[in-house]
Amino acid sequence: MSKPDSIERALTSTEPISSAKFDPCGVVSLTSDFGLVDPYVGMMKAVILSHCPTAKIVDLTHGVPAQDVRVAAFYLSRAWRHFQRGTVHLAVVDPGVGTDRRLLVAVLDGHAFVGPDNGLLAASLSSRAIVGDLDVARFALAGGSHTFHGRDVMAPAVAALASGLAVTSAVRAPVTSIVAAPFGPPRPLPDGGIEVEVLVADHYGNLILACGPGDLDGPIAGWCVEIAGREIAFARTYAQVDRGQLVALVDSLPAIEIAVRDGSARDVLGLDRGDRVNLRKRPC
Amino acid sequence: MSKPDSIERALTSTEPISSAKFDPCGVVSLTSDFGLVDPYVGMMKAVILSHCPTAKIVDLTHGVPAQDVRVAAFYLSRAWRHFQRGTVHLAVVDPGVGTDRRLLVAVLDGHAFVGPDNGLLAASLSSRAIVGDLDVARFALAGGSHTFHGRDVMAPAVAALASGLAVTSAVRAPVTSIVAAPFGPPRPLPDGGIEVEVLVADHYGNLILACGPGDLDGPIAGWCVEIAGREIAFARTYAQVDRGQLVALVDSLPAIEIAVRDGSARDVLGLDRGDRVNLRKRPC
Amino acid sequence: MSKPDSIERALTSTEPISSAKFDPCGVVSLTSDFGLVDPYVGMMKAVILSHCPTAKIVDLTHGVPAQDVRVAAFYLSRAWRHFQRGTVHLAVVDPGVGTDRRLLVAVLDGHAFVGPDNGLLAASLSSRAIVGDLDVARFALAGGSHTFHGRDVMAPAVAALASGLAVTSAVRAPVTSIVAAPFGPPRPLPDGGIEVEVLVADHYGNLILACGPGDLDGPIAGWCVEIAGREIAFARTYAQVDRGQLVALVDSLPAIEIAVRDGSARDVLGLDRGDRVNLRKRPC
Repeated sequence: MSKPDSIERALTSTEPISSAKFDPCGVVSLTSDFGLVDPYVGMMKAVILSHCPTAKIVDLTHGVPAQDVRVAAFYLSRAWRHFQRGTVHLAVVDPGVGTDRRLLVAVLDGHAFVGPDNGLLAASLSSRAIVGDLDVARFALAGGSHTFHGRDVMAPAVAALASGLAVTSAVRAPVTSIVAAPFGPPRPLPDGGIEVEVLVADHYGNLILACGPGDLDGPIAGWCVEIAGREIAFARTYAQVDRGQLVALVDSLPAIEIAVRDGSARDVLGLDRGDRVNLRKRPC
Repeated sequence: MSKPDSIERALTSTEPISSAKFDPCGVVSLTSDFGLVDPYVGMMKAVILSHCPTAKIVDLTHGVPAQDVRVAAFYLSRAWRHFQRGTVHLAVVDPGVGTDRRLLVAVLDGHAFVGPDNGLLAASLSSRAIVGDLDVARFALAGGSHTFHGRDVMAPAVAALASGLAVTSAVRAPVTSIVAAPFGPPRPLPDGGIEVEVLVADHYGNLILACGPGDLDGPIAGWCVEIAGREIAFARTYAQVDRGQLVALVDSLPAIEIAVRDGSARDVLGLDRGDRVNLRKRPC
Repeated sequence: MSKPDSIERALTSTEPISSAKFDPCGVVSLTSDFGLVDPYVGMMKAVILSHCPTAKIVDLTHGVPAQDVRVAAFYLSRAWRHFQRGTVHLAVVDPGVGTDRRLLVAVLDGHAFVGPDNGLLAASLSSRAIVGDLDVARFALAGGSHTFHGRDVMAPAVAALASGLAVTSAVRAPVTSIVAAPFGPPRPLPDGGIEVEVLVADHYGNLILACGPGDLDGPIAGWCVEIAGREIAFARTYAQVDRGQLVALVDSLPAIEIAVRDGSARDVLGLDRGDRVNLRKRPC
């Protein structure tokens, strides 16, 4: 389920890497599936700070489910524009570590991205992005591991970019196609509705669907979520329904979300990551 | 249980907001129920740093139980004075997001506070605090959400205060009464003791009661915790009892706490958030 | 199991504390068993920043199991050299808080360490380390607690060291022997193999053994992990076995680790912290 497919996506930018405009502001964002129980995140930060003592490191999240490239890709794609231009975004969900999978460096709209070429960055990168193949030999720490390239290869590269190294110096070659983002569009239903996957349940038990408001045509009030015969209407905010009631809404990511006011939709509906729900194109 | 009541508490300060003394030191503390699994905290930090690149952001905690205004209010009230003067404290446990609940800006003893008017700040603010109604229109991000005002309204306001915006410019009007802190004093018992609620069990399984040493008159050694016929004596520190033994003490918050040395009082006693225990005014 | 023994280990450095070379870079690393649910870490950071506003604080981990000095000692010993010279490492797993256990200050290879003398620092400190007894009276905050010396004694000391206070001024007296690291070497088996303890299962369910590559003589390919009649061969990286298959490897800490590719060895094998496995000196 969480396995990225390997469909390649062509990039259409014709600009050479030397034209990538990236002016570092010192902020580094981190996205991973490392969790915060073990010292993995801390060691990665240690390496970044050792190589770029002025870096300001911000955890976007380390709580994506283990190996789940899709959730990480979705979250990063929704979050990166909240950071200031000049941020380097390091994303590490890397089940292929130690294989010959490529590492990417990308620049888009003044932000830089570093991560494995497994779909993780693809949801964030429009076809305008300028992308290159990270020069692993340049950055790999002496005596580094075979199992933690986030710390031993990518962290030094990120530190170099945050310190002002030109993007063109960080890559071996331009890249013209990358592994596609590991989720496709919602599946159309015969009646004009769509079938959508539950991408993940968040900390509150809100069910975050793998689609955004742009996937629903017409006004949101013209749609109805249907789950096992149950109908859930859209509202603007949680507090528009009574406590304990189900509600659908466009959340802050933005994604279509099913929630229970002051409660857990995951628990009430018995749904979780990978389950599917139908959105009908009619009011409830 | 976690629902804040809506008792208003009058503020007695007669000073105008323009006299609020707040000289930012650049530190921003964050308290929320967001958890660290999802990207919500990271996005909020991104917005703060985008608007105030020199901010030094410290997580007080994001682990208060979902929607539990009381626990967050208690923790913030116990913690804020450990930060240096000039800190802006942002607290977001906001079940009323999207309703017409007010957002507050407050200044007390050289610290600033931002959060919803639902009792969250009230436990920290003495009646000397100078409080205003946040000018939402001034700070709301263009295209912001209806469900995440921590990121889309409060974070920009906090960044502005941390950058030196005068408090008087951040508010629409002075506020003379706020929603009271959502817990009252312990309930007196006929025999001179008190009945107290378990506010929360912490990471170690220590039971943190909704009272502090100031709620017990006389020396602590003159009190005894009684739970289901079991008596638990007070000690100064965990190591004064044998491993696996129950102990009551004034902890570091400070709160009255029931603990098991090198173990979990929650598991041993089968008690958790919302349960009630009696403190008897006699030695065990 | 997690109880540190109290074997003292002699330090052989003959250099006086005044010769300890420590030039702070402003970075402070934190290692504890506090978890991130409660405000304990946040309060400790508040105190550090209050006393050293320029400190850059990095969480190594706060997720070691409660009271488990061994796991914390192991993680710190594997991680501290990833930080730059001039880092102060504060480690607090302190079941003896409030007793007369000593607090230590140590310097090794340009890094400084602060923590209780219970074995926590010993795995990181070679016999060349220069160690002293923290001058508690100098640093203890007025009105501090009996139960949280991480915040009320060690944090101010760490802030002082990060601000440039001479190590010699932070200690009362030199220390010539410290409580030994609370784990010994693997136990030799009659056939030339070794029996090793599972130190901890990490976030992915990988079983981290209490030994490193240096504990296995000869090339790693000449060894085989044996668990309940099952044999697990060594590989270089996770992706060398099929999804769902067991694999042993030298991980990034480095430690000997048993993993399941894209899965959880803890769940598959039913093993966890404290269990024991045999490493046989023959290929699988």
